[in-house]
Amino acid sequence: MGPGPSNVAPSVLKAMSAPLVGHLDPVFVKMMEEIKAMLRQVFLTQNEITFPVSGTGSAGMEFCCVNLIEPGDEVVIGINGVFGGRLAEVAERCGAKVTRVEAPWGRILEPGPMAEALKGRKPKLVGLVHAETSTGALTPVPEIARMAREAGALMLLDAVTSLGGCPVQVDEWGIDAVYSATQKCLSCPPGLSPVSFSARALEVARKRRSKVQSWYLDVNLLASYWGQDRVYHHTAPISMNYALHEALRLVLEEGLENRWRRHRENHLALKEGLQTLGLGLASQEGHQLWQLNAVTVRPGTDEVSVRQRLLSEFNIEVGAGLGPLKGKVWRIGLMGETSSRANVKKVLQALEVCLA
Amino acid sequence: MGPGPSNVAPSVLKAMSAPLVGHLDPVFVKMMEEIKAMLRQVFLTQNEITFPVSGTGSAGMEFCCVNLIEPGDEVVIGINGVFGGRLAEVAERCGAKVTRVEAPWGRILEPGPMAEALKGRKPKLVGLVHAETSTGALTPVPEIARMAREAGALMLLDAVTSLGGCPVQVDEWGIDAVYSATQKCLSCPPGLSPVSFSARALEVARKRRSKVQSWYLDVNLLASYWGQDRVYHHTAPISMNYALHEALRLVLEEGLENRWRRHRENHLALKEGLQTLGLGLASQEGHQLWQLNAVTVRPGTDEVSVRQRLLSEFNIEVGAGLGPLKGKVWRIGLMGETSSRANVKKVLQALEVCLA
Repeated sequence: MGPGPSNVAPSVLKAMSAPLVGHLDPVFVKMMEEIKAMLRQVFLTQNEITFPVSGTGSAGMEFCCVNLIEPGDEVVIGINGVFGGRLAEVAERCGAKVTRVEAPWGRILEPGPMAEALKGRKPKLVGLVHAETSTGALTPVPEIARMAREAGALMLLDAVTSLGGCPVQVDEWGIDAVYSATQKCLSCPPGLSPVSFSARALEVARKRRSKVQSWYLDVNLLASYWGQDRVYHHTAPISMNYALHEALRLVLEEGLENRWRRHRENHLALKEGLQTLGLGLASQEGHQLWQLNAVTVRPGTDEVSVRQRLLSEFNIEVGAGLGPLKGKVWRIGLMGETSSRANVKKVLQALEVCLA
Repeated sequence: MGPGPSNVAPSVLKAMSAPLVGHLDPVFVKMMEEIKAMLRQVFLTQNEITFPVSGTGSAGMEFCCVNLIEPGDEVVIGINGVFGGRLAEVAERCGAKVTRVEAPWGRILEPGPMAEALKGRKPKLVGLVHAETSTGALTPVPEIARMAREAGALMLLDAVTSLGGCPVQVDEWGIDAVYSATQKCLSCPPGLSPVSFSARALEVARKRRSKVQSWYLDVNLLASYWGQDRVYHHTAPISMNYALHEALRLVLEEGLENRWRRHRENHLALKEGLQTLGLGLASQEGHQLWQLNAVTVRPGTDEVSVRQRLLSEFNIEVGAGLGPLKGKVWRIGLMGETSSRANVKKVLQALEVCLA
């Protein structure tokens, strides 16, 4: 029940442990097509370029940046936690001139300051973290995406923790580039990063003046492997793709809306139970993540001991606070398979004992 | 029996499908230590910096280049197949001025031309592919590594296909940076790239003037996660590390020398059987890989049909030729678990039928 990896369904573990086939085997090629099709359904997009990058969520973040940014490009990044900061750092390592639009940790990125930052500017890209796993805040996307488009910028979204746990509407919101990860609300082991590029984003990547600085993450090469050409690029992580295939099947079998509702209801049940224990959430009221709850540690409580006791006595992992929230919150994940009423009860009972 | 992924032992698949724990869980941290210790045994090195990068072999190649190369650096790369060419390409994307030392595909990189290229130069790095998976040639390393050191360069070795199938003596040979992959002779699914840096290489990475262009592959950050500090960097691919842990255990249980001998003997048995069928190897006599056999297609044989028939009728995957060897060879892998007398017999019998 930490900030991910979440628990994984037995059928996903079983699928992952099937014997290996080659990365150009017809059986695997068919599976690749199905993974792409299912990812489009989960991202709610028609984007042709939609596939899993062969690395974790941070590799997906880097995939988006290295392909879309060239040295000297102006980029605007919203930062209200660890992952916005990381995105700015990755963009800078691609040579971007980054304007940071900051909000206090735990708060959302409001459209106002973003509008201010965009005024009179023509950045190439605006980047935003949808669900900040470090703080438990969910920033609304549509208005900021609209402003980005009006400024002529590509809109880049970090959907690592949001995808599969709450609405992520890539086409409807006008997102040009999005990355996620398998180990959060998709409930697949970590190791792959689903990404999607709009036609507009792909065109930017195709018309670059300079080569993409990463060969491994070059969308022009990856599109030839994941597209109809099947040109060998790298050896895809076969077993991880087996796992993702089954995890996506389970997501769609449950249905996106049912899945979102389940995440919402379990979050509300946890929040209510926490209140009974005198505990509240550190993130902004009205914008709290369903899948990640940053619980404020009361003054006088030994944060580390409680966390260690939850693990050793109750077999429950919860996350520590990061950055300015270090020592101040526990991060309780209710992601994918982990989001269940039984787990909500279990963690509340355990917390009650530990805080007694 | 293609060029990888190789077959995987049942106990590796079983280990991989264990329930997930967090990437900072004490159980996982202990496993990380064991993986590092076992990798050092397999690489025959004492290097502190020895761990699996969270991506496939090409990510390991990129890891070495992005950390050791800065824009404008002079680099010399030996090229006698696909992977040497890829290494040069990756180095160039890091801003290197690359001198290519080329040998015909199927031949080894001789020390002579390398000495010629190094004469009067002071490159920062010399890169070499040990086992060229695209051609089946095994280039001897020690002499070239010695020349690189005398020229004041770091020695970088691609051990993707060699590690676990034939001697790779990182410390003895004076290798400064090495990368491999899990899906060849280690017989673990693809998805991780074991790497190792000498103290000298690490110092170069630590004293860079510019930031490493990849955040995901920055050794300075990764060393803090894989070292004693356990600073969160990215979410490690937990299940893949479970698999690697068990795969390495099996390698060491068999013993490196026994494993090399097994690969050698099965290669020789295959070669003998091929001769009986009137088939030879395309790679240089005396330097043929034990784990990957590039079999010359006889004139008049329909290369594609034979390969498809092997797969559909006999359930045997063999690889196609790449680049100048396209249509001219089949690549038969005898890697890790796949290297068995039973498989040698199976593929010879199937080839006999297909060529009749």
